[in-house]
Amino acid sequence: MASAIPIAKGLDHVVVDRSSISWVGGGTGELVYRGFDIDALVPGVPYESVVHLLLYGEPPSADPSPEVAAALRAHQRPPPGVLSIADAIPAGQPPLEALRTILSALGDGSFGYPPTREDGFRLIAQAPVLLARYVRRSAGGAPIEPDPALSHAENYLGMVTGRRPAPAAVRALESYLVLLADHGMNASTFALRVAISTQSDLASAATAALATLKGPLHGGAPAKVSEMLDAVGDAGRAEAWIAERLARKEILFGFGHRAYKTEDPRNLLLHAIARRVADPARLRLAEAVEDRGLAALRAAKPGARLYTNVEFYGAVVLESVGLPRELFTPTFAVARTAGWAAHALEQAADNRLIRPEMEYVGPPAGRRWPRPRATA
Amino acid sequence: MASAIPIAKGLDHVVVDRSSISWVGGGTGELVYRGFDIDALVPGVPYESVVHLLLYGEPPSADPSPEVAAALRAHQRPPPGVLSIADAIPAGQPPLEALRTILSALGDGSFGYPPTREDGFRLIAQAPVLLARYVRRSAGGAPIEPDPALSHAENYLGMVTGRRPAPAAVRALESYLVLLADHGMNASTFALRVAISTQSDLASAATAALATLKGPLHGGAPAKVSEMLDAVGDAGRAEAWIAERLARKEILFGFGHRAYKTEDPRNLLLHAIARRVADPARLRLAEAVEDRGLAALRAAKPGARLYTNVEFYGAVVLESVGLPRELFTPTFAVARTAGWAAHALEQAADNRLIRPEMEYVGPPAGRRWPRPRATA
Repeated sequence: MASAIPIAKGLDHVVVDRSSISWVGGGTGELVYRGFDIDALVPGVPYESVVHLLLYGEPPSADPSPEVAAALRAHQRPPPGVLSIADAIPAGQPPLEALRTILSALGDGSFGYPPTREDGFRLIAQAPVLLARYVRRSAGGAPIEPDPALSHAENYLGMVTGRRPAPAAVRALESYLVLLADHGMNASTFALRVAISTQSDLASAATAALATLKGPLHGGAPAKVSEMLDAVGDAGRAEAWIAERLARKEILFGFGHRAYKTEDPRNLLLHAIARRVADPARLRLAEAVEDRGLAALRAAKPGARLYTNVEFYGAVVLESVGLPRELFTPTFAVARTAGWAAHALEQAADNRLIRPEMEYVGPPAGRRWPRPRATA
Repeated sequence: MASAIPIAKGLDHVVVDRSSISWVGGGTGELVYRGFDIDALVPGVPYESVVHLLLYGEPPSADPSPEVAAALRAHQRPPPGVLSIADAIPAGQPPLEALRTILSALGDGSFGYPPTREDGFRLIAQAPVLLARYVRRSAGGAPIEPDPALSHAENYLGMVTGRRPAPAAVRALESYLVLLADHGMNASTFALRVAISTQSDLASAATAALATLKGPLHGGAPAKVSEMLDAVGDAGRAEAWIAERLARKEILFGFGHRAYKTEDPRNLLLHAIARRVADPARLRLAEAVEDRGLAALRAAKPGARLYTNVEFYGAVVLESVGLPRELFTPTFAVARTAGWAAHALEQAADNRLIRPEMEYVGPPAGRRWPRPRATA
């Protein structure tokens, strides 16, 4: 039934809008937030200041952004109705499922259209608090309340692990949050913009984004990198393990990216961070898997421009700061709430309903129901 | 900063995929489900049989579909963990917000990729049960359990209103559910397919769809038709009321549709149903508003192909069967779960990650952070 109509399946190369939030230079390996290369932000620029940059368009007057720090503090305590839903999620559910329900629970009727910066602050502030609360309860612990004296990154890491984190771990996590804060028109951000384009609200749209981030082709796979490293076990076994796996036509996790045809700049920075915070044996193992994996993949496909992606050293960094694997994707989402908020504001500022078409290739019209219909 | 890159804002006329589920003939006023014009289904073909048609591609062997009726019965009782979340949603929240959280709650880790027909039956069966349970609790009533002896439409109407519905009301609601079961690549279905394209699951994707349906540019506006009819109050006042409203540059709800350049075939059928079930004075009022509204809009824009849309007589029908306005959009969603399930299966059967591009128009790269960065 295929016809001559050109089908933009996957929407590759379809430019859906203009945006001034971030630029993904897939050919050159660049990621830019409002004119700032991520190398100009990581390490050292606080997450609060990057939230400021993304939501206001310009850097704050001081670091960490006083406006954003105050707004996040002001919204750190979710309202009772939201807490009651979050506290009803059965312990033991995957935290990523719980986080989707938590984001939906934020939408209690008080988020409207158009979305506001304040809506964004509520989302950014409350997602980690509620996620950590769920994780603690799932582990049989009491919730740890956010400490207004701590940074966003330190609060999150402390609430979710139940320990006062080491300064190096906080710095590493903060860099991760900054690096994952936005990434152009990825699938979850696109889903968010589709939702906003109907004049839906930010809580709804962020829920749609999380529902989309969840898939392993987007954000749902980083834990598999850690599982893969465990399975290899030792740097010396990397080559044989990879050869065997590829012979079984199974994929290597953390390799390749739709946008980047060179090194993913986030992964390079996360590799540098891993060198500082990771267990040396684990780092050697990861580097061996990367090295042998790329060699094997390139040998199988000469000329392929293939590199490890942000999930690869992202997983090593998240392991190293003490996060369990089931929190890797939720932590990605916690970082991305900033970008989602910025994109919601941008979409609403010059909105048009996003509604593509499809080509109908089913049976031609005019079929008759095989039985008499009930009379009305 | 606009450049020469063509921007497909709104994705108008971008054909994103092929589909054999439904065809929207916007020029001719047709809606076809797998070869069956909706006129061949409404009135009289049970919702269960239309679910069968959408999910299996062919009509069932008998009406109502024995397979679908059995599957929906089998899934009518949500698991305790899902109930616990649904029962924690604060009473008094808009049911549409509650329904988004309910759909998310279905995703307890047991929905996977690829989605299955069974996943679809769970979604279709449990969404109305949980929504009705919430609505009853919000109204201070005890939940009414689904009765396996009743049809999907009768169960829903009885559970949500707390009364045994009149047969004519059940038939009218059933027709509404059939007419709203699918509609090509609309925004919520597209959001669902974006989510599935990352290999996310059906509970997540349906949550994303509902988040998108919520916007007034998609499914969030039908209650406004009823409010508008109330405001007009009497058929004799329609002309003056509309003139005044248009003079204030305010829109008329239930008029116009992006896809249809002629009568929306669903609206024609719903008008016929309204003639049977609506209060005569209310029907006259609606017809007067339609008539005077179209006359005024066409006078203001000669040559415009403008008609009332499915929300117009949809609202009149939903009022007439006893549903409160805040349930209009949730009831639309209850109908659409069938189409969402079908589209999730179709997307997964030949999947490609849906990830468009955008043109970066922000400040050029190379900016330097205004202050020294913290050392890592």
